[in-house]
Amino acid sequence: MQDKKIPIGILGATGMVGQRFIQLLQGHPWFEIVWLAASERSEGKSYAEAVRWRMKTRLPENIANMQMSPADPANAPKVIFAALDSGPAKELEPKFAKAGCAVVTNSSAFRMYPDVPLVVPEVNPDHIAILEHQQWRKDTGGYIVTNPNCCAIGLVMALAPLHQRFTIDRLFVSTMQAVSGAGYPGVPTLDILGNVIPYIGGEEPKLEAETKKLLGTHTSEGIKDATFAITAHCNRVPVEDGHTECVSLSFARKASEAEILDAWRQYSGVPQQLGLPSAPPVVLIYDERPERPQPRFDVDAGGGMTATIGRLRPCGLLDWKFVVLSHNTIRGAAGAAILNAELLKAKGFLS
Amino acid sequence: MQDKKIPIGILGATGMVGQRFIQLLQGHPWFEIVWLAASERSEGKSYAEAVRWRMKTRLPENIANMQMSPADPANAPKVIFAALDSGPAKELEPKFAKAGCAVVTNSSAFRMYPDVPLVVPEVNPDHIAILEHQQWRKDTGGYIVTNPNCCAIGLVMALAPLHQRFTIDRLFVSTMQAVSGAGYPGVPTLDILGNVIPYIGGEEPKLEAETKKLLGTHTSEGIKDATFAITAHCNRVPVEDGHTECVSLSFARKASEAEILDAWRQYSGVPQQLGLPSAPPVVLIYDERPERPQPRFDVDAGGGMTATIGRLRPCGLLDWKFVVLSHNTIRGAAGAAILNAELLKAKGFLS
Amino acid sequence: MQDKKIPIGILGATGMVGQRFIQLLQGHPWFEIVWLAASERSEGKSYAEAVRWRMKTRLPENIANMQMSPADPANAPKVIFAALDSGPAKELEPKFAKAGCAVVTNSSAFRMYPDVPLVVPEVNPDHIAILEHQQWRKDTGGYIVTNPNCCAIGLVMALAPLHQRFTIDRLFVSTMQAVSGAGYPGVPTLDILGNVIPYIGGEEPKLEAETKKLLGTHTSEGIKDATFAITAHCNRVPVEDGHTECVSLSFARKASEAEILDAWRQYSGVPQQLGLPSAPPVVLIYDERPERPQPRFDVDAGGGMTATIGRLRPCGLLDWKFVVLSHNTIRGAAGAAILNAELLKAKGFLS
Amino acid sequence: MQDKKIPIGILGATGMVGQRFIQLLQGHPWFEIVWLAASERSEGKSYAEAVRWRMKTRLPENIANMQMSPADPANAPKVIFAALDSGPAKELEPKFAKAGCAVVTNSSAFRMYPDVPLVVPEVNPDHIAILEHQQWRKDTGGYIVTNPNCCAIGLVMALAPLHQRFTIDRLFVSTMQAVSGAGYPGVPTLDILGNVIPYIGGEEPKLEAETKKLLGTHTSEGIKDATFAITAHCNRVPVEDGHTECVSLSFARKASEAEILDAWRQYSGVPQQLGLPSAPPVVLIYDERPERPQPRFDVDAGGGMTATIGRLRPCGLLDWKFVVLSHNTIRGAAGAAILNAELLKAKGFLS
Repeated sequence: MQDKKIPIGILGATGMVGQRFIQLLQGHPWFEIVWLAASERSEGKSYAEAVRWRMKTRLPENIANMQMSPADPANAPKVIFAALDSGPAKELEPKFAKAGCAVVTNSSAFRMYPDVPLVVPEVNPDHIAILEHQQWRKDTGGYIVTNPNCCAIGLVMALAPLHQRFTIDRLFVSTMQAVSGAGYPGVPTLDILGNVIPYIGGEEPKLEAETKKLLGTHTSEGIKDATFAITAHCNRVPVEDGHTECVSLSFARKASEAEILDAWRQYSGVPQQLGLPSAPPVVLIYDERPERPQPRFDVDAGGGMTATIGRLRPCGLLDWKFVVLSHNTIRGAAGAAILNAELLKAKGFLS
Repeated sequence: MQDKKIPIGILGATGMVGQRFIQLLQGHPWFEIVWLAASERSEGKSYAEAVRWRMKTRLPENIANMQMSPADPANAPKVIFAALDSGPAKELEPKFAKAGCAVVTNSSAFRMYPDVPLVVPEVNPDHIAILEHQQWRKDTGGYIVTNPNCCAIGLVMALAPLHQRFTIDRLFVSTMQAVSGAGYPGVPTLDILGNVIPYIGGEEPKLEAETKKLLGTHTSEGIKDATFAITAHCNRVPVEDGHTECVSLSFARKASEAEILDAWRQYSGVPQQLGLPSAPPVVLIYDERPERPQPRFDVDAGGGMTATIGRLRPCGLLDWKFVVLSHNTIRGAAGAAILNAELLKAKGFLS
Repeated sequence: MQDKKIPIGILGATGMVGQRFIQLLQGHPWFEIVWLAASERSEGKSYAEAVRWRMKTRLPENIANMQMSPADPANAPKVIFAALDSGPAKELEPKFAKAGCAVVTNSSAFRMYPDVPLVVPEVNPDHIAILEHQQWRKDTGGYIVTNPNCCAIGLVMALAPLHQRFTIDRLFVSTMQAVSGAGYPGVPTLDILGNVIPYIGGEEPKLEAETKKLLGTHTSEGIKDATFAITAHCNRVPVEDGHTECVSLSFARKASEAEILDAWRQYSGVPQQLGLPSAPPVVLIYDERPERPQPRFDVDAGGGMTATIGRLRPCGLLDWKFVVLSHNTIRGAAGAAILNAELLKAKGFLS
Repeated sequence: MQDKKIPIGILGATGMVGQRFIQLLQGHPWFEIVWLAASERSEGKSYAEAVRWRMKTRLPENIANMQMSPADPANAPKVIFAALDSGPAKELEPKFAKAGCAVVTNSSAFRMYPDVPLVVPEVNPDHIAILEHQQWRKDTGGYIVTNPNCCAIGLVMALAPLHQRFTIDRLFVSTMQAVSGAGYPGVPTLDILGNVIPYIGGEEPKLEAETKKLLGTHTSEGIKDATFAITAHCNRVPVEDGHTECVSLSFARKASEAEILDAWRQYSGVPQQLGLPSAPPVVLIYDERPERPQPRFDVDAGGGMTATIGRLRPCGLLDWKFVVLSHNTIRGAAGAAILNAELLKAKGFLS
């Protein structure tokens, strides 16, 4: 695309999502990691010293030797990928935006702010426009763009093509979420080995609210949430990667099985049209086998950026029910933010 | 209760549920195992030779040395606990009923027959009366009484007190079911270790249909199914014992949180009033902790006969949502049949 | 035994081992919990507020409401069960001994001190005598008595009767240890789910050294370590409770299979002779089945106080090999300390 | 290498190892699958109908549509990869050899026959020469070549460079083996979830005997086994893929830590020199991190063909101890046979 790569920094580089950023950005055609920061106690250390590397691929040499910077905009590049806990995010992300940085974040801190885009590039690319309303943008050119919670992403990928055509009016979702969603060290083995935890703090309201914002419409007054009724049950299961979601829904305009399958199979978006580097060629796979999708076999579809759907069947209460699976730390976190950054770049919001 | 115990036999004695029967009937005050049968290849062997014992308690000496009989009513006692797969059940259970045996079965073969009681003693004890309509009963005194599918039982235990007071009109349930529900050898490790399988063959229709029959009403024309709309999503998770179910529901008559909690806490039934030996003193436990119930900690409540409920909260789509957990091979299978037999005995249907 | 129970305190009452102490001491005939302490941040709270209760049995009411004391001997009872990490133990245990307390501890801090008894009551009850050499004992009557590392206990229980009769001269042990051995939160799920970790920090030297001290002899100069050569390989596996150990060994005096089985089956010790409350009637079970022992089925033998042995067979390199399993948080930790305290009481060291 | 690929067949194509053959042979530069056979009941079906595909990669179209042949040499190609259970192997492999086929097998049936090569190409490539002594070879040109048991392969890869330089004289090994080693359906979840099984039928004698044959020397009288003493403890653990082995050993000629690490790091063999397509560039990785190797992170090193070693340290009983990990269904089964076939081809035994 261009000879010179855009220098980027990672805030919260030592956590699980931070590590995924590093893994996924290796050899990225547009972005180059030049700056890493995390908590105070890692300052001045090499990244190799600061991190407990948990990825299955080896830690790249050049990154291993990079020195950890203070979590401060001074000397930071103008494009920042953020993977902070909500607390630090609330404080640090505005600091970087104010300093003129494009903050592309996975944290939940600002997702529901009216002037902060919450974006999945295939689903609602037009929502990025609202970043123009951010005060930081007006003052310094900086801004914050967010991606959704890891279980909202897979869900809206499956829902978007249906909502476009048939307009969802009622939605039930019950999740079985992987432990990697809780970060590292995250879930103690004694809590989950051979067990299920039918509760994830704060997850259900997030999933309900973010889904309505993501499927909302961009108007002159900003994003108007989708108006369907939604309820979520969120559960933790002993799976490493991959959130599985059981969905029942009904539409304003009745849809046949063939129409739904067609909507999923046809589904493609701006990232595919623009050929964004991290865009999976196939957004959604529908697997005919009755027992699929399954985390073990399907989580890495499309390099972890494709969602896999199965079991479309009539629902005894609403119209249809099905199962959707997506990778919670790739499509659901680091990969989501990278795809957002690629969209921003393609749309001229990075430079 | 009486000096002489009722001699009973077990059909399908070597399977997981058959083993549970043997475990749970040790030292039973009313029933005594005198006859064991399974497939042809175990005939003539001692039980110890015929079985791959999988219970955590030791195989009792007297049972270990008992000789396996042919699966034939000749020489069988008049009370039979059955734990057969659906195929053999369809053929053998009528044979025993016809021969005058009371067949108290866990199999699914006859559950939905109009003249076959499908009973959970706390929930619908009056349904046993319909066994009088069975032809076998008229001819020889024999009959078949069934208990529900392992995930229907926990669900109806939580629903019954609510349905009585508020009348359920819509119901969603999404299950996370233990591997022991599939028997032994059952689920291969390579299918489920670190994985979720969002499909259990035939389970969803069973759960939907049985729930409506169990909560139905006994009329002169027989059992009239409950009329609420229901939909089920059934999933297998890597848990040894204990089915966890996420429920959303609405009522014809609006209920407050306090009324629902009160309904659960007050809940007691005929088995408790009659002091049936296997009846748990407490039918339902409501656990206030946000992350409960969990299989690891709650599955053995009440000796595996009590269901544990948690997370009652408003539902964004229907009225309320909650989580219920019950033991799938005790309350959900062998313990269910034993409690049915105890009810039959107390009501004078055994002798 | 006597009307009045001995008041005891628990140092480190909120951790996993502390919780086990509370669970196992419920209704203890000799000891009564009157004092609980943990880290500073729990001071003044009720135990229920201070603890994240992880036992499967319910937290007893009376304990739940007990107020947490400062970790200071002032106002502490004279018998203290300690379940501290090594660091705090090094500082606090002497403080309590100096103040005249009998400190019965599970921590590793003082196990290898020449004048500190390291005791498994069936194995080396005579070793408690060396506590008389402790300066605290001389000054105030206080002292420290320790039990071994969780994987040393099961091992020495299996070895003691063989060492007595045949004198071990070479010993190889490879362990597969449960996650509960690492406490709570302990091992992150992402480290161990579907995985094995062939390393536990500091475990191998501990297992090697403690085994030699436990099987050592009490002489006028103190404990003389056993002189056999030993090597240990320690591994973490995704098991909740129960350490499984593969053992190969040779003897100075050749032993037949029958002699070894006889030694194990005959094995009984001072706790059984004295009828100590926590002493299992059977110390060692030998299971003939080729695939046993297994954590899932055998860990709770004798209420978690019995070790289970299996697979005795000739070794291609040394004389014999076998497998031993024991419960790492009952016999391997809290139960071990309680049995030590019972021995001390019976021998007149508590009052 | 050559324009025309060698047509090959797979005996036992529907099992786990058969599926691995198909997966690993996709796009192979030398071999092309033209014939598939399994048990009688799959005859005539398409492969897609006959198999329960368990690989994570998709079943290739061309293979899916291939028709299953009878397990008979008539119409079979002249190079056969075999992945049969021992029973069928004993009967079928000689039939194919007699018919002039080169049978490259993963089964254990003929491994220990004096005139049958048991080969790991890096370790004992010269052993293939003994196939000339096979009667089939003399009669029809056909022969049988075997690869070792899945846990023998990783072990001998780590031992070979040490044995060459220092001559092993005593060897302990304790394994923790993945469930995929038992095939599919293989190990029931109820046997292994949260559990360890300290027994695998027949595994220990196999591991002991095969290790001595593999490290034996090729003489005019055939293969002379290595003479060291060896003992094995074999355990099953809840891991999907990857056998972890704890090793203690001593040498005739004392070796320093540096010499051992050097032997491993220098290690390369005939497959690397010949550039065989499936030969990993690096045979052995030594990982300095104390807690490695681990199945989750290291099993796929070198595409599953590289063994990873760690934790070299002095042994309290023998000279040294360490841990080795290898992939049990790639390097330990299908990949092993393919590498054997590549060696045979390079040495002129296929045509």
